[in-house]
Amino acid sequence: MQFSIVTLLAIAGAAVAAPSASVYAGTTKKNMIMMISDGFGPASETLARAWVQQHDQYPPNYMSVIDKIMVGSSRTRSADSFVTDSAPGAVCFASGIKTYNNALGITTNYVPVGTNMEAAHRAGYKTGLVAKSYIADATPAAFASHAANRAMFDLISEQMAGLVPEIGQNVDLMFGGGRCTFIGNATKGSCRTDNKDLYPLMAKNGWTNIVNRTEFNALSATSKLPISGLFSIGNMPYSIDYPYNDVPSLQEMTKKALDILTEATKNSTQGFYIMIEGSRIDHAGHANDAGTHIREILEYWETIKIVSDYIDAHPETAMVSTSDHECGGLTLGRDNNYWLYPLVYTNQTKSQELACNELLAANITARGDLVTNVIVPKYLGKKNASPKVNAAILAANSTSECYLAMSAALSVDANLYWTSLGHTGVDVNVYAKGNNVTGIHGNMENTDIGNWITSYLGVDQAAVTSSIAKTNVFQYPFKRPNTTFVYTYPGTA
Amino acid sequence: MQFSIVTLLAIAGAAVAAPSASVYAGTTKKNMIMMISDGFGPASETLARAWVQQHDQYPPNYMSVIDKIMVGSSRTRSADSFVTDSAPGAVCFASGIKTYNNALGITTNYVPVGTNMEAAHRAGYKTGLVAKSYIADATPAAFASHAANRAMFDLISEQMAGLVPEIGQNVDLMFGGGRCTFIGNATKGSCRTDNKDLYPLMAKNGWTNIVNRTEFNALSATSKLPISGLFSIGNMPYSIDYPYNDVPSLQEMTKKALDILTEATKNSTQGFYIMIEGSRIDHAGHANDAGTHIREILEYWETIKIVSDYIDAHPETAMVSTSDHECGGLTLGRDNNYWLYPLVYTNQTKSQELACNELLAANITARGDLVTNVIVPKYLGKKNASPKVNAAILAANSTSECYLAMSAALSVDANLYWTSLGHTGVDVNVYAKGNNVTGIHGNMENTDIGNWITSYLGVDQAAVTSSIAKTNVFQYPFKRPNTTFVYTYPGTA
Repeated sequence: MQFSIVTLLAIAGAAVAAPSASVYAGTTKKNMIMMISDGFGPASETLARAWVQQHDQYPPNYMSVIDKIMVGSSRTRSADSFVTDSAPGAVCFASGIKTYNNALGITTNYVPVGTNMEAAHRAGYKTGLVAKSYIADATPAAFASHAANRAMFDLISEQMAGLVPEIGQNVDLMFGGGRCTFIGNATKGSCRTDNKDLYPLMAKNGWTNIVNRTEFNALSATSKLPISGLFSIGNMPYSIDYPYNDVPSLQEMTKKALDILTEATKNSTQGFYIMIEGSRIDHAGHANDAGTHIREILEYWETIKIVSDYIDAHPETAMVSTSDHECGGLTLGRDNNYWLYPLVYTNQTKSQELACNELLAANITARGDLVTNVIVPKYLGKKNASPKVNAAILAANSTSECYLAMSAALSVDANLYWTSLGHTGVDVNVYAKGNNVTGIHGNMENTDIGNWITSYLGVDQAAVTSSIAKTNVFQYPFKRPNTTFVYTYPGTA
Repeated sequence: MQFSIVTLLAIAGAAVAAPSASVYAGTTKKNMIMMISDGFGPASETLARAWVQQHDQYPPNYMSVIDKIMVGSSRTRSADSFVTDSAPGAVCFASGIKTYNNALGITTNYVPVGTNMEAAHRAGYKTGLVAKSYIADATPAAFASHAANRAMFDLISEQMAGLVPEIGQNVDLMFGGGRCTFIGNATKGSCRTDNKDLYPLMAKNGWTNIVNRTEFNALSATSKLPISGLFSIGNMPYSIDYPYNDVPSLQEMTKKALDILTEATKNSTQGFYIMIEGSRIDHAGHANDAGTHIREILEYWETIKIVSDYIDAHPETAMVSTSDHECGGLTLGRDNNYWLYPLVYTNQTKSQELACNELLAANITARGDLVTNVIVPKYLGKKNASPKVNAAILAANSTSECYLAMSAALSVDANLYWTSLGHTGVDVNVYAKGNNVTGIHGNMENTDIGNWITSYLGVDQAAVTSSIAKTNVFQYPFKRPNTTFVYTYPGTA
């Protein structure tokens, strides 16, 4: 599945001349920034743009920062389904292969496969992962771990922390959420199944491990790698809920990571390779929470702007941005009406996640007042809601029911629709900017993008595959579960 | 709103050098083929590709003929809604301006605006329109008529036939459906409000008017223009229903049109400009009829293949293919299930339109047998349907209800969903191939595409606008209706 750049161009139906081979020989310093907008489909971009256009009264030809660098689309299916989950979705980008839903860093035959980040680290690149989810969640995990199932968080975290000798340490910087998979279960907040504490073991290997904003603010460009910064026990908050828990935003984490990686590679002939994920665009899709979804997209746009500006100042850098899949089945029209009114979401002030957590935690007798006087008018921003709308939310007995009721309360007014609490199969957009990105355009297979990154970096992913295949340390987890695995988050945000 | 090619490149965020000015100076012979896949959104392409991939057991990296020439996407909103209808959707391509829903060839201030086809005809190009809908339906009409509302079929047909002196004759070839707007209402099948027969008037002006396959087969490359071939009273049949009514397919009409236009321009310094529409991809979306939708897309792909082969043999030709909007709100996933099973539609043999027409025309007492033994197992191809499924279809009292019941009968099995019987607002894909199409890429405004065509042709659309603005022949229809206009087709297929 290793494609040359010429093959990739042929696959993409391109009429573009192949860049000279020297670009890929690993002799010229270059950086790669892989951006992943998890669960972000074409309708999501259109909705976010429409909201901004209407809200800021821009003309119809207003373009977002990513509209300006749109280059094509990606087909998202996994090896065993037209609808992928995030694990094989990210394996495509990290290892350039299709595998089965829930798999990380292994083939459909349960053979471990090297990642381009592992290969880049061995070739002397500095590497980083930035996400708003658990750092050991599927997308970042796919770049630096190997597991039969994405839910094997204990094992995955140890691999990402460089604590499994057969794989070695492949990540120099991790910013995100999900501290719970790094702390032993004797400690409050842990979501490990064992009492293993990864932080002391990482510290012994030279890691600086930080957990809060004060420590984050104290980091400077010259802070020494490796560094881990896991700022939430679970997922980091949605941007609509900031300053909830006072964590750094995706923009802040990105800027700091770029500063540190740039400084760390300033005297190197190799550059850096970082993956930055707008993780919770997906989560808001799962919750069918359009107002929160829009704001996660805006945060992602702003992060793209930071990366775009970085590229302008550092032309040896390439950025590719795409999604692993769409989420939620968002459509911008319903019921035979020819209009869309995104401004419905302007007055929403909290995510459905926070609102539902608060509602379901409240005493039954307090819920009526909470829904009518706080959640609907203030959190969702819906004034003069009918008693029927309030009653539907009040009737929710589970998080899913609560999400669906809140989603429906606004989506009728906006004239949009969600068709699933899970992922969907439509092709997603691809965006690119910078150094030698002409090979990325048109309609592509998701694996083409991973193989293109490997080619761009000029690293030997196959050698990593060979080296990790020789050990049998992976045998114990590399058994596909006999039962269908239902993926759940191991903790709460 | 007239953009230079350099401006267009800047708008598209392109890093591509502008083609030399001489290409646009009108001195070099060139052809333009505008392809419109009406109502075809990103999910529709993914679904059709998935069906073929699964049906023909192709590998996951299978690409359709249009996947190979995908160049970007188009934003589809009209002047007055984020969800356009086909009239202003096509005006963007024909005149490069945004106008209000239902408007044809006029601005939001009710001022007529020239089209690039009118300008091309005046500049000596031969021009053509091919569609599977009424030829006077919004999309083809936008290239050669001006009306306050797309439903003004009497007026629109006369303009397209070149019978309004102030506009003149701008079309040399028309193939499609919708003969009913060309024949006076004393004749059976007419859908005009008056008794005006356009055919004798056209014949007087030199038109050859044909209406059936025998006459179509008798046409040769050297047949003399102008030619009209309207093969159905209403819309032409869906491809799934062929050989219903024995009309030429979109591929046949396209091939014949290209032959005739090529021959007619062989000694000219100007080439031709033709618009070819896969009109009923949209209609199947309106009916939420995925099996028919897939087959209309496959017919469109085959037509693209014909055009693509033509370009290989005639490199002075450019083709751009896009959609005016998405239709139906198709999503490829529902109910939190991570799978899609397109093969559900393999055994469907008739469109829901034909099936519903047959059902609703049947005697009440015969319907139970018809649904249980014919429509569900044979037309929809669903074996062993539950009594509940059959009962839901049997309960339908209107065409819409019938469509929804039939759609639901299959979409649950396929795990897909439709959210509207109307249009939706997501960006649509853009495809291009051939002569000087480097300016068409990235995320574009729909108007950019129309202005790009005008620039490519090197014609003076503004002069047409000036010339038609001078007359007041348009005043009588150019009054926006006071009431909201509900668009309906003027006849049946």
